[in-house]
Amino acid sequence: MDELRNSIRDIPDFPKAGILFKDITTLLIDPVMFKKAVDALYDKYKDMKIDKVLGIEARGFIFAPMLAYKLNAGFVPVRKPGKLPAATKSISYDLEYGTDSLEIHEDAIKKGDNIIIIDDLLATGGTAEAVVKLVKELGGNVLGTGFVIELEFLNGRSKLEGTDVFTLVKF
Amino acid sequence: MDELRNSIRDIPDFPKAGILFKDITTLLIDPVMFKKAVDALYDKYKDMKIDKVLGIEARGFIFAPMLAYKLNAGFVPVRKPGKLPAATKSISYDLEYGTDSLEIHEDAIKKGDNIIIIDDLLATGGTAEAVVKLVKELGGNVLGTGFVIELEFLNGRSKLEGTDVFTLVKF
Repeated sequence: MDELRNSIRDIPDFPKAGILFKDITTLLIDPVMFKKAVDALYDKYKDMKIDKVLGIEARGFIFAPMLAYKLNAGFVPVRKPGKLPAATKSISYDLEYGTDSLEIHEDAIKKGDNIIIIDDLLATGGTAEAVVKLVKELGGNVLGTGFVIELEFLNGRSKLEGTDVFTLVKF
Repeated sequence: MDELRNSIRDIPDFPKAGILFKDITTLLIDPVMFKKAVDALYDKYKDMKIDKVLGIEARGFIFAPMLAYKLNAGFVPVRKPGKLPAATKSISYDLEYGTDSLEIHEDAIKKGDNIIIIDDLLATGGTAEAVVKLVKELGGNVLGTGFVIELEFLNGRSKLEGTDVFTLVKF
């Protein structure tokens, strides 16, 4: 995965001073690297009989639908408040300062559905943890959480204990 | 495309009273319909030698990366202000009330690149028109704009004259 790692660009001081942002747009624009990333995620899940792939707005929408397509599963968007038009279930989670929340259509998950949750980045794990909880509340089985990048020093895995956490590139 | 049309759900009075919202989440969650939509878009562009597929945040991210993957092209996100970390070029466009703007990484398009622009919905056409302009300013060739849904009564095509507009389901 060294090539994949090298295709990710460092942007200093984004979104604020002192933060070194890992920019995946340089991976996405390279057809060979992009294919490598998608196929590596697919390989992980291909024998698991996944019913639905959840993607978290906005960058999670880049990888999750492709996995759904390749796995013959449905794609379910997890969105910011007020974006989903039908009846939703929502969950709040803590940020560094304050809280945020996410929503999913109530009818998007059926009891016993096999689910994976996909996002581009595992940082503190707070977002993914909230989505795991949301899925469980709706009766789904979380078979895994998958990410392109893991920022290991933030220890997001500790928030996802008990779920199968899979990441392609660790920093 | 009747099946595809039937897989899209009507939500009355969203996002505000009097608007009948076309909800594609019911299409996305159905693996057969989702595949049909992606494959129909792919068929349209498969012989065109596309270099880059642009997707407009957030729902455009659902279809554009998949086309990039299948076309062996790069995926380029067009995002809301402040989301892209490197140097950007931005464009403003009119909404019903007020204006909005979108950004693209300056280095994401090279002179002469063959580009398609993908979004879920062609409504008034203002957003797509702005992105076409942005691509041209960076020296790219817009070979087409593709959408899952077209709301014909809003006549968005008139804003995209001179580009090849392709839509899967018309309402």
